[in-house]
Amino acid sequence: MTDTNWEMAEADVLAAIGDALDRGNDAVLATIIDVEGSAYRRPGAKMLIEGDGGAGSLTAGCLEDEVRGLANEVLDAGRPRIETYDLMGDEDVWGLGMGCNGIITVLLEPLDASHRPAVERVAHGTDCATLTVVGGDRPLGERGIYDPDDGFAGALPEWLVADLADRTAALFDAGRSETISVDTDDGSVELFVDTIEAPPELVVLGSGPDVTPVVELATRVGFRVAVVAFRGALSEADFPAADTVHTTSPPKLRESIDLDADTHVVVMTHNFIDDRLALGELLDTPVPYIGLMGPRDRFEEMRDELAAEGVSITDADADRIYTPIGLDLGGDAPSTIAYSIVAELLAVANDRTPRHLAERAGPIHERRAVEPTE
Amino acid sequence: MTDTNWEMAEADVLAAIGDALDRGNDAVLATIIDVEGSAYRRPGAKMLIEGDGGAGSLTAGCLEDEVRGLANEVLDAGRPRIETYDLMGDEDVWGLGMGCNGIITVLLEPLDASHRPAVERVAHGTDCATLTVVGGDRPLGERGIYDPDDGFAGALPEWLVADLADRTAALFDAGRSETISVDTDDGSVELFVDTIEAPPELVVLGSGPDVTPVVELATRVGFRVAVVAFRGALSEADFPAADTVHTTSPPKLRESIDLDADTHVVVMTHNFIDDRLALGELLDTPVPYIGLMGPRDRFEEMRDELAAEGVSITDADADRIYTPIGLDLGGDAPSTIAYSIVAELLAVANDRTPRHLAERAGPIHERRAVEPTE
Repeated sequence: MTDTNWEMAEADVLAAIGDALDRGNDAVLATIIDVEGSAYRRPGAKMLIEGDGGAGSLTAGCLEDEVRGLANEVLDAGRPRIETYDLMGDEDVWGLGMGCNGIITVLLEPLDASHRPAVERVAHGTDCATLTVVGGDRPLGERGIYDPDDGFAGALPEWLVADLADRTAALFDAGRSETISVDTDDGSVELFVDTIEAPPELVVLGSGPDVTPVVELATRVGFRVAVVAFRGALSEADFPAADTVHTTSPPKLRESIDLDADTHVVVMTHNFIDDRLALGELLDTPVPYIGLMGPRDRFEEMRDELAAEGVSITDADADRIYTPIGLDLGGDAPSTIAYSIVAELLAVANDRTPRHLAERAGPIHERRAVEPTE
Repeated sequence: MTDTNWEMAEADVLAAIGDALDRGNDAVLATIIDVEGSAYRRPGAKMLIEGDGGAGSLTAGCLEDEVRGLANEVLDAGRPRIETYDLMGDEDVWGLGMGCNGIITVLLEPLDASHRPAVERVAHGTDCATLTVVGGDRPLGERGIYDPDDGFAGALPEWLVADLADRTAALFDAGRSETISVDTDDGSVELFVDTIEAPPELVVLGSGPDVTPVVELATRVGFRVAVVAFRGALSEADFPAADTVHTTSPPKLRESIDLDADTHVVVMTHNFIDDRLALGELLDTPVPYIGLMGPRDRFEEMRDELAAEGVSITDADADRIYTPIGLDLGGDAPSTIAYSIVAELLAVANDRTPRHLAERAGPIHERRAVEPTE
C-alpha cells in the first residue's frame, strides 16, 4: 500500500471499491463504525484490502497492519466480522507504542455486490447513506441504501426501514455517520448509518500557469475539477491533474458546463473582460461560490460595468462572491496563492468559518483544577 | 520552463540562482521592482532565465514570454536594463488578451557575483535585503546587501548607505520590498530594496503515514522541513519530500535538532507518552508554534501530567500551543487534515489571522455610487 493510496480521498476509495468489484478478485472492506476517545479518523473511514494492495486508511498507521492481517481470515470465513481495538492507556499493545488513545470498532466484510449502489451514486455525484447491520436480530452485514431522490433500497426488511427512516435522513442531512439502535416488536437491530458524500465540484476559469497548482491542490483534497479555458484550445494534457478540460467562450459558459448548486467556481483568467463576462454568466446560475482573483477595486470596476448593462449584484450574490479570493494566510508565491484559494474552497464546501481549531475549542488559558494522576 | 519551476518557492528560486552561478553559464535574472494597479505578484518576484530553462515567475503567465525574449539582448549588451509593461486598459497588447491590469516594472540583469551574497544568506537561513541601483546618479545594477547581524556590505558608496540605512532596516523589518529615492548633495539615486526571507523552518515529530502529506504540502509552500522519528530508525528515503530526517528520543530532542525562535513544530507521534515528553522539551525552547494533534482533552491530560512533574504551562506557552492542530476547514480525510495543518502553519509563520481575504477587505454589500463607464 503506497502512501498515496493511504492518503486517498474518500470518493477515490469508493472508486477503488468499484474497480475491485469490476475485477472480481477477492477483497475485504474495513470500515470504522464506532470511535470512543481520541482517534485520527471518524466513523465511516474505509480501507480496502485486495491482495497486497488496497486503498484508504482507518488510522494514522496504528491499525492498518493489524486489520490487513485479518483480511484473509474474513475471506476464508466468507462473512463479515467486527473487531474492537482498544488503543487507550499506557500499555504498549501494538509493539511500537502507537497507542492512538481511542477505542475503535471496525467492520470487516468480504467485498460484494451490496457495495455497488454507493459506488455508483458517488460516481454520479450523488450523496447517499448506506445502512449496514452490525448487531442484533438481523444478519451481520445485511445492507440497505438511502438517497434523498430515490429513498431507500436494498436488502433491509420494511419494518426496519420504516423505523429508521427519519433518523437516517437526519444523519444524512447532517453529513454524519454513526451506529444507531432499532428496537421494535419485530426485533432489535444495531445499524451503522454511513453518510457518503460525493466529491465537491470545482470549475476553474483560466488557463495560465497559476491554474495548475490550484488544480493539483484541489484534487488532492478531494474536489472533482474542471478547467475551462476561454482562449486557445486546451486539452487534458495541459492540466493533467484536472478531471476534465473544456474550451469555450464566456457567453457559452453555461451551455458548456454544468453549473449547479454544488459547483464552486474560481475565476482567474487574468483578463478583465473575460472575468467580467464570466461573472455576469455566473450570476445567472445557482453556484454557491464565485472566487474572483484580483483586488477589490477590480471587482468594483466590474460591478460598475455590469450595472451599466443593467445587471445588479444582489446581497445574496455578494454573499457568494469572494474577492480578493482565498484565505488570508500570507505569502505572495504562486504556491501560497494557490494554497490559500483551495483552503477557502475547503472551508466553503464544508461550511466552516476559517479559524484555528484551537480557537474553536476555546482558550487554553483557563486552567482546570490540577489533579495529579499518580 | 516547467510548471513546477514556474511555481517554485522563493527560496528555491534563490537556490536555483546559486546553482546557475556555480555552473557559470550565461543567465539573466528578472526582478519585479515596481507594481501599479492589480498584479499577480508583488515587487521582489524573480524569474531566472538560463538558456531554455529557468526558475520562478513574475506574473500569472502574462509577461514571462516577453521577458524571456529580452534575455538574449540583455546578455549581448552585458548590462542591466529596466522594462515597464503597461497591462492596463482594454487594448489587447499581448495578443492573448492576458491584460493583467497593472503596470509592472522589471529589472533585467546578467547574473553575476553580486547576486551570490543573498543566495548564501538564504541558504544559511538568514533573512537579508539587497539594495540595487535602478536609476539616478549611480550605475544601474550596482548592488549592496544588508542583514541585521552583519549590517551593510557590497558595492554601494558610504554616503548612499548612510542615507538609506534606516529606511532599509524599516523595510526589512516589515518584510517589504520597494523602490526608494535617495537625494543628497552627493547625488540622487533610486534603489530597489528587496527583502528576501529565508524559508520558514518546520520540524515534524512523528513517523506515521500521516506525516507524509504534511511534509509534501509544507515543502510545496516553501517550508524547510525536518522529520523527527522517535521509534525505529528512519531515513530520508522514508520521507522523500523532507529536507532532513532524524531519529532520536524525546529527552534527546533538543540536542538532536535546532529548535529556535524561527522553528515551527508539529507534534503528531500518535503516542501519548512521546507527545507529552516532547511537549515538555519544547516548552524549554523558544519555538513560536507547537501544533499538537489530538483533541483538547488529550492536551489537558498532558497538562495534568506535566503539572504533576512540576512543569506548568504559562499563558505565553498557551499562546504558542495550537491544539487541536490546524485550521477549521472541515473534512476528515488524511489529505484534508494535512491541508488544515499546513494552512495553520502558513498563517502563523506569516503572522496572519486566518479568515477570508474578502472579509479583510470589508463587506461588498456596501454599494458605491454607480457611475456608468460609458
